[in-house]
Parts: sequence; structure tokens; C-alpha cells
Amino acid sequence: MSKDRAAGKPRPWADMATELVDVAMGRKPADLVVRNGRWVNVHSGEIIPGTDIAVSGGRFAYCGPDASHAIGDDTIVVDAAGRYLAPGLCDAHMHVESGMVTVTEFCRAVIPHGTTSMFIDPHEIANVLGLPGVRLMHDEAMAMPVNVHVQMPSCVPSAPGLENAGAQLTVDDVREAMTWPNIIGLGEVMNFPGVAANDPVMSGEIAETVRAGKTVGGHYASPDLGLPFHGYVAGGPEDDHEGTRADDAIARVRLGLKAMLRLGSAWYDVAEQVKAVTEQGIDPRNFILCTDDSHSGTLVNEGHMDRVVRHAIAQGLKPVTAIQMATLNTAQHFRLERELGSIAPGRLADFLVVSDLAAMKIDAVYARGQLVAKDGRLEIDIPAYDYPLEAKNTVRLGKRLAATDFDIAAPAGANSVRARVIGVIENQAPTRALEADLGVADGLVAMDREGDVCQIALVERHRGTGGVTNAFVSGFGYTEDCAIASSVAHDSHHIIVVGTNKNDMALAANRLAEVGGGVVLYSKGRELALVEMPIAGLMSDERAEIVAEKAERLVEAMQQMGCTLNNAYMQHSLLALVVIPELRISDIGLVDVRTFERVELFV
Amino acid sequence: MSKDRAAGKPRPWADMATELVDVAMGRKPADLVVRNGRWVNVHSGEIIPGTDIAVSGGRFAYCGPDASHAIGDDTIVVDAAGRYLAPGLCDAHMHVESGMVTVTEFCRAVIPHGTTSMFIDPHEIANVLGLPGVRLMHDEAMAMPVNVHVQMPSCVPSAPGLENAGAQLTVDDVREAMTWPNIIGLGEVMNFPGVAANDPVMSGEIAETVRAGKTVGGHYASPDLGLPFHGYVAGGPEDDHEGTRADDAIARVRLGLKAMLRLGSAWYDVAEQVKAVTEQGIDPRNFILCTDDSHSGTLVNEGHMDRVVRHAIAQGLKPVTAIQMATLNTAQHFRLERELGSIAPGRLADFLVVSDLAAMKIDAVYARGQLVAKDGRLEIDIPAYDYPLEAKNTVRLGKRLAATDFDIAAPAGANSVRARVIGVIENQAPTRALEADLGVADGLVAMDREGDVCQIALVERHRGTGGVTNAFVSGFGYTEDCAIASSVAHDSHHIIVVGTNKNDMALAANRLAEVGGGVVLYSKGRELALVEMPIAGLMSDERAEIVAEKAERLVEAMQQMGCTLNNAYMQHSLLALVVIPELRISDIGLVDVRTFERVELFV
Repeated sequence: MSKDRAAGKPRPWADMATELVDVAMGRKPADLVVRNGRWVNVHSGEIIPGTDIAVSGGRFAYCGPDASHAIGDDTIVVDAAGRYLAPGLCDAHMHVESGMVTVTEFCRAVIPHGTTSMFIDPHEIANVLGLPGVRLMHDEAMAMPVNVHVQMPSCVPSAPGLENAGAQLTVDDVREAMTWPNIIGLGEVMNFPGVAANDPVMSGEIAETVRAGKTVGGHYASPDLGLPFHGYVAGGPEDDHEGTRADDAIARVRLGLKAMLRLGSAWYDVAEQVKAVTEQGIDPRNFILCTDDSHSGTLVNEGHMDRVVRHAIAQGLKPVTAIQMATLNTAQHFRLERELGSIAPGRLADFLVVSDLAAMKIDAVYARGQLVAKDGRLEIDIPAYDYPLEAKNTVRLGKRLAATDFDIAAPAGANSVRARVIGVIENQAPTRALEADLGVADGLVAMDREGDVCQIALVERHRGTGGVTNAFVSGFGYTEDCAIASSVAHDSHHIIVVGTNKNDMALAANRLAEVGGGVVLYSKGRELALVEMPIAGLMSDERAEIVAEKAERLVEAMQQMGCTLNNAYMQHSLLALVVIPELRISDIGLVDVRTFERVELFV
Repeated sequence: MSKDRAAGKPRPWADMATELVDVAMGRKPADLVVRNGRWVNVHSGEIIPGTDIAVSGGRFAYCGPDASHAIGDDTIVVDAAGRYLAPGLCDAHMHVESGMVTVTEFCRAVIPHGTTSMFIDPHEIANVLGLPGVRLMHDEAMAMPVNVHVQMPSCVPSAPGLENAGAQLTVDDVREAMTWPNIIGLGEVMNFPGVAANDPVMSGEIAETVRAGKTVGGHYASPDLGLPFHGYVAGGPEDDHEGTRADDAIARVRLGLKAMLRLGSAWYDVAEQVKAVTEQGIDPRNFILCTDDSHSGTLVNEGHMDRVVRHAIAQGLKPVTAIQMATLNTAQHFRLERELGSIAPGRLADFLVVSDLAAMKIDAVYARGQLVAKDGRLEIDIPAYDYPLEAKNTVRLGKRLAATDFDIAAPAGANSVRARVIGVIENQAPTRALEADLGVADGLVAMDREGDVCQIALVERHRGTGGVTNAFVSGFGYTEDCAIASSVAHDSHHIIVVGTNKNDMALAANRLAEVGGGVVLYSKGRELALVEMPIAGLMSDERAEIVAEKAERLVEAMQQMGCTLNNAYMQHSLLALVVIPELRISDIGLVDVRTFERVELFV
């Protein structure tokens, strides 16, 4: 197999069909033949022992009982020794930025876990850098040795009028992006009230995507399955990954959407929803697995789509059904059934050698016919992608912050106040809109460490306005003097600071301005952990293992401060996400996401 | 509901999404609301009682428990009274010409049977009139009140070198046709040895179709599932309807093809192949039902896709699974999942009101939101489509034939001969390559009426060459003096004459030249039955009922002549199909379709 050819994207099937036919017929030797595998056939739903596959030019040419006729002098022959041959896994919806690393580093981290196709929505960088940011990740994605397809972000800002992001995307931007070579569709349409209200930006973006023949990603983050849900579906989104209950999945599938079930670092939405299949007998063909958001630490320590498939099998799905949900179903959804997602003639030769199917023990990963990982280790080099300077200078505070920037003044003369408090819910994206009675000292509202109420601040960082929005949050359980600041702050990506000590809050925010963004923890004036993310303030330019190590140090530091949450940092970074109920913070104030209205801090 | 709008094709979903959203949300009344149905949900695989649907502008706007909010003063409200609401049925591969009627008349005949989408391959007319003939049917199809999508014929002539048709289609023709608005893909690629041999016309046509993002229809008519099959699949065809055994279906599905199971007038390929699902547990998602070829009589007396679905259910499929095979699976295959094939928001409002699901008893048929048939009767008018004169003057014999044109001279001095004989197989398309010892009288080979060996002739009719190919056939069982001539003579559509009497053979062929084509039966110099088909010599311009009546008269006459075959006329018309084994006749002679070689009449 030519190294040069394997490194690039194979020619389209239609352009090389005669070569594949020649190999299938035995008139030309294959580049690679794998013998004696158990074919995990996602088309038929079977496991077929005694299968050989032959690969030529990065695509499958032959899949059947005997490929000896395709073996020539230069053919690489691999003995699968009865192990399973499964299609490479697909992550149907995910944000690379959540791994805090570049696309390149993300690929390096997930390829050994069997992921060979990703559908990435770079809407974090879009919120910081706009369309040029999307193009950067689009171009980086095209250079990868696996399939990284890009969804054009649809909602930047996520909630117009409720936040100001670093950029804004328009219908014209979507129309333009649909002409790019590596755009697979529209990213999750999160403004679901906008769709149901016929917001012209939402309906315009959807229409441009449909006219381009591409897939419209959905995001309906409400438990209400009544008219707003039906109105949203009539507007055109084709999938949704925001369901949490079996009934959510069923409602989506009934109306012709794909139910995307996610298992991310902080999302645990597979187990409940997959009961629609395992308990209620719903046809699994319209179910798709995805991660949405994965920490580097999750990638390095737990895995990626292998973890999701393993988990889905553990919930009672047949292995081949779970694998369909991470291969064929995904490919079909994105109109790529003839290109990837199965081991069948003509498709990209992306496949896994698996020694234990239910456990998804992956011994080897092949992408485009090339061995790319073995025994959990990457076997190829993926050169780093150079991000330009303007992508690395995005944290602009406008001033050096002081502790007093985080003072919350009580109403004149009040001895105590009843304040709205953002309530973090363990393992879930939605928050609760809580209320708490808080004391007042020297005219300032006091935090309540015993009651687990500390401060949260949204620090503007795109335009250097110096703006700081202050509010309260509960659920982290911080017992020490500390502050955590993050320039990853979905979706507008200002800086979220959560702290029990205002001096630490100021230090933490200022530190991020120095390093170009990231996440940092201060306690009593000392920096205990830092993950630098200079690319758009969202991504590190270091290796995933190093980022994971630094992030792990951060998690440990958060635990030392008393925090007991799983994925505490991800919870932290979502507190400005003004599209998921119930209560969030943005640069314009507190937002009640049940009503999509700004609300006052005090009740 | 506006009559004008309902008559035309609804606007694309993307262009009218805001209207659908308005109806779903209760801000705008629907055109039509159907209440209290049992939703046959092909996405989830469920039957959901208590379902209302609301339709606007020809598309579903709402499907759920209560559409009362969508009812306005002018909304037509229908009470389904607990009956089933099923998607309109799709015929995934069929030839209108086999019904001997125009597209218009075909639609009139099948709409009451619940067929609202057809994927037609006009390769009969293409063999007579070439690309302009395809365009005629393409344009007629677009004028229909149901969805008639056209597959561009791929193999005209079917077997280059083995026959001369009335026209020839090229790779350039395919490229041009792919730009037409109503071309859904490439019609069955019948030259399967050509694909496996990398014939440049075959691979070129497939490549043009794939580049246009359309579906490549397959046709692999061989029991050999070895390398030639694998080579064919590697070449790019996406479906196949030529399988007959469960193993055929499984082999196709495993390699990523859709197994199309057909029940036509003379095809009975569902029962055996569906065992792949019912007995061997193969995932049914890649199985699709079709008819391929239906007589007018079958349409009028037995039905169309309702008959196929009913039959599939009777083989043990769950009703919803069988309906998936005739709706969602088909729509997905042709990249139309978002357009048709299910009752779900945004899709064309093509649906059936069914009072008995297993029996497929269809009480009403709606297409694009309009009631088009009720209790088996058409409720709308479909104006006849005017075919131009040049499409009606296609039978050119070049001379008036005489009985002597059908003389078969024995080798000089022979008293008897051993001749090749085409053996008709009841209910199957393949023939047998038989041999028979025949007597010689006056230097001419004699037929053997006791041994059921009579004559067959292929009379050239496209260029008026006066050519007549004579040979022998067995299996019809004719016991009387008679001849049957047909200008429907797949695929090159010369005239096939089968007879026990040469004078009747000449009379029959000459009669077809007079009426512009069709099928006629003569016995002892008298015309006993005639179906005129002046359009390309393939289709009548009369109503399907009348054609069916005339065809029934023909069948009766064939039976009176001693023929005992089911669908004897269809068997007759397939005897020149030089792509299906074993022995066929063409204008160049006898063809052995096992080896794709011309063979001598005498052994």
C-alpha cells in the first residue's frame, strides 16, 4: 500500500470503481487483505464468521468468504484470527472544543478508541471568531487522516437579545458555508423557540441547508412535547440529542427525527432513552449515538465512541444494534451511507479489529485502509495544524479586574435579600432556578458557604468592555476560599468566574487575560491549577495527554476546594448557556431560560 | 383546500416550512384534518391509536394526539373513526409499459390501490424511441397528481452486440438526463457482465449517476454469488430485484445493496426471499417491495402495491414491517426520506385510510392532501397526456410478410434435426435451453405439436429491414392452429411471433404493422383478439379497464388455443430478453444468455 495514497483522502468511489471491480474480480491485487474475521455486518444485522476483506486505494473492494484471489506480491495480509471486523465508529454530533484541544489533537486522542468519523459543530469558535473561525476548523478537519465533517453553526449567538457573543452568523453566512467542500449540514438549531416562532434567521438558515441537500441538526432542549415541539419539527430539524427520557426519544422518532443519544463527559442520556428500544420495542434504525461534549480526560482515560457503544450494549442492546447506532444509522442520517459506516464494497476502508465485541475491546484501527492505531496506541503521525495569530489573541478584558468588581450591592437599607440562585444539577445540563435568603454586610450581599451559595460572574472578554455580571450559584459545594475562571463559557465564551472569595475571582480572571484564555483555579491568592487554551480561548495547542493531565490537576484542585460534582468543570462552563433551562447568566444579566427573559437578581 | 393548489405539486418543504410551523402551532388553520386514526408509524415501527393529522399546502404539518387547534372555518375535517392511517405506498421499481398503458392510465389504475409513489424505468420506450422517448414519459410523469419519479434507462440496447434495438443510449445521454428535474437515478443496470468487466459504457453511466447524487438501480440476474456478483457490487449498483432465493436477498443486503423483492404479474419473488427476515432474522430495513412488471389485468383485478404488501404480510411479516418495505425503506433508498414514505411533518401528505391492515383494505387514498380515491374508485380526473405523432408510428416491417418468411430450412439432406428450443418455465423469468429432435418435411423442419414445440420468430420492426429470425419454443402448450404476435418484446421490442401455423404467424405480424403495434392472436386466418398499442408499439392510449378487458380476451384466446401458463402473454413478451438466462431469441439469432453468445439453431 502506497504511504502517499493512504495519507490522503481516497478518490471518490465513482472515480475508482473500475479499480475496485478489478480487485474484486481478481484481476488486480489489493493493497490490504484481512483474513478470517467475524464480519460485523450492520446492513444485515449479522455476525458472519470466516470473512475476508480486500482493500484498494483506501476503499473496500471485496468482502466475503475468500479474498485469496486479491492477494498479490505487494499486498499486506493480516490474519484477524477469528476476531471481529467492525466498521469504524462515528460520533454523530460533537464539539471538538469541549476536549480543549485542536481537531488534530482530538483525532490523535480518539482514533485509538475506534472513532474514524466525526461530525463536529465548531460553534464555540464561531462564537469567538465568527465565520473565519469556522473555516479554520473546517480546513483543519479536511487535513485529518479520518473523516471529520463539519456542521455549520446555526445559532451564533445562541440566544440573540439574551447575550452578546464575539461574533454573529447570518443566513448569508450559512449559504456561503454550504458551498464549502467539508460542510455536512447545519449545526444544532438551538433556538427552538425561534424555529417555532418562525424567526427568519432560523427558518432562513434551515432553508439554505435543505436547498443544499444537507442535514439540519436539531436541539430541542425542553421537556414539553406539546405544540412547541411539533412546531419545531415542522420547521425542519432532522435530529435531536437533547432528549433525556425514553418518551423523548420516542416522540422524536415518531415525527421522523433521528433520536441522538449522548454519552459525554457530563451527559448520561443513553441509558434512559435506549429503553425505548430495549423495553418498548421501537425500531432502532432511527437511533444514533454521540458524545456531544467530551473532556480530554474522558478521552484519555475512558474512551470515546467505544465507551458509548460499550455502555449502550451494557444497557441491553444487541452488540450489532448498538454498533449500527454508531455506524450505519449515522452515515445514513448524513447522506453518507455509500461512503462510510459499514464494511461493504466501495465504502472507505475504516474498520476495527475487535477481540471482545460486547466490551468493545479494540485491538486495531484502520482508516482508509491504513493501520492508524494498535492496542490503544496511535500508529501514525498527524502533524500539528498552525492556527494564525489572530486566533490566539481573543481574551480582552479592557481593564485589570479587582475584587470590588465582584461586589453585589444590596438594595438600599436591606438587612437581607431573597436572591435568585443558579442551581447546578448533578450529571445534567439543565439547572434549577433556585432562590435563597442571603445576609447583607456593609451594603453588600454576602455569600452563604454553609448553604453552598457562592458567587458567579460573567466577565465580558470579546470587546474589552470591562463588563462584569454578578450573581449566585449553588451546587459546587466549595468549602474553601477559592475561585475558578474559564474562558470556555458556552456558548458566547466570555469568562465565567465562580468563587467563594472575590480577590481570588479577580486574580483568576486576570490570569486568563495573560495566557490568552483557558481555565484557572486560585485559592487564597495562589494559582493551584491552570490549563492554557490560547486558541480562541477555547483550545490548547498542546497534546491531549498533557491537557488531560492539567485538567486532571484542575479537577483535583476543585475537589480540594470541596467540590463533589462529577465533571465539575464542564458544569461550570455551561452556566452561561442561555438556551438550556432553567436559570443562566450572560453578559446582559440573569436569564430565565424557561421564559427566555432576563430576570432580576433579587426576587 | 384550494383545488388549484392540490392539483399541482406542493412547494418544497423548505419553501413552506413557516406555513407548516404556523399550522402546527395553531396560528393558521389547516386545509385538512383527519381525526382519530391509528397512525402506522414507519419510523418507530408502532401503531399509535388516537392520532390526528393536519395537512397544509399538500404536506403534513402536524401528526399527534390532537389537531383541534389546526381546525378553522374552511378546514376539511375527516373522522377516521379508529381506522389505520398508513403512508401512501411506493413501487420502487417498475415499468409502466408493462401495463400496456400510458403513465396517466397507469396512475388511474393504481391510485385506488394505494400507490402514491412510483419509480419507473421507461426502458421499453427508450429501446424504441431513445432519449426523446424517455423525455416523453418523464414529462408525462411530472404532470401526475402522485409522485412518479423516473429512472434513466441504462442498458439500451440491453445486450450490445446481441441485439439491435430501435435506439441506443450513451454515457452522454445519461449525463444529460441527470439534469432533468424528474430523474431520480439510473435504471436497472442489466448488463451485469459488463459491469464486472469494466465496460466503459456501464462504468461511465454509473459514475455520472453517482456524481449527480442519484441512485443506481441494479439488476443481477444470475444465481452465481461468487466473484462476478462481488465485482458487480464493487461497480456501484445500489439495489437488485432479480434475486429469487433467501440467500440471494441476504447476499445483496450483506454487501450494502437493497434487496428489492418483487411481486408482479409474472414475478413471485417475495415469498422465498422474505424468509431471510422471517426465518433468518436479517434486519428488514434494507428490504424493499416492488412489482417490476404488472399487466393491466393484474392492476384492475388484483391490485398493485396493496397486493404486494398483503402478500408480504401473509408470508409472516409484521404489517408495519411490510409497510416499511413499501414506504420508508423505498424513500430512504432514493434519498427522499424527507419528502415521502411516512406520515410525519413536512412530508407530502400521501396517505391511506385502511380498515383492515393485514388485508390492506384501503378505504380512501389521499395524495398531497387531496382525496384521490375512495372505496377503490378514483375521485379525481387525470387528463390524458398527448403523445406526438412520431411516438405513434414505430412499427415498420419493410414488407408484407408471408407464411414462407417463417420457413426453417433443414440442413441439406437431413431427415430429422436436433434443434435448440427455448423452454418457458412457469412463473419464472429465466428460460431453459432445451433441445428437441424434430422431423423434416420438404426440406423444412417441422414443429411437434404433441411434444409442445412450436415456432417462434423475431421480426425486425424498427428500421424496416424485413429481417425475420426463426427458432423453436416449448412450454406454451398450444394445441390449435394459431399465432400470437407482439410488438412488446423485451427489451429491444421488435415483434415476437409464436405460432403453430405459419400463415397465422404472417397474418398476426402484418396486423400489428397496420395498427401501430400491440398484440394480436390469429387462428386459422381469423383474428380472435387484439390489443392495440400505438404509442411506441408498447402502450395503448385507452383506459386501463378497456386494455385489461382486451388483454383478458387475449388470454382467453390463448387458453382456447391450449395454453395453460399463468401470464402466458408476459412470458411470450420476454422471450427476446437477452439478459436473463438461459436461451433467448433476438434479431441476430438465438442467444445463450449463460455465455452471452449467439448459438446455432441446430445442435
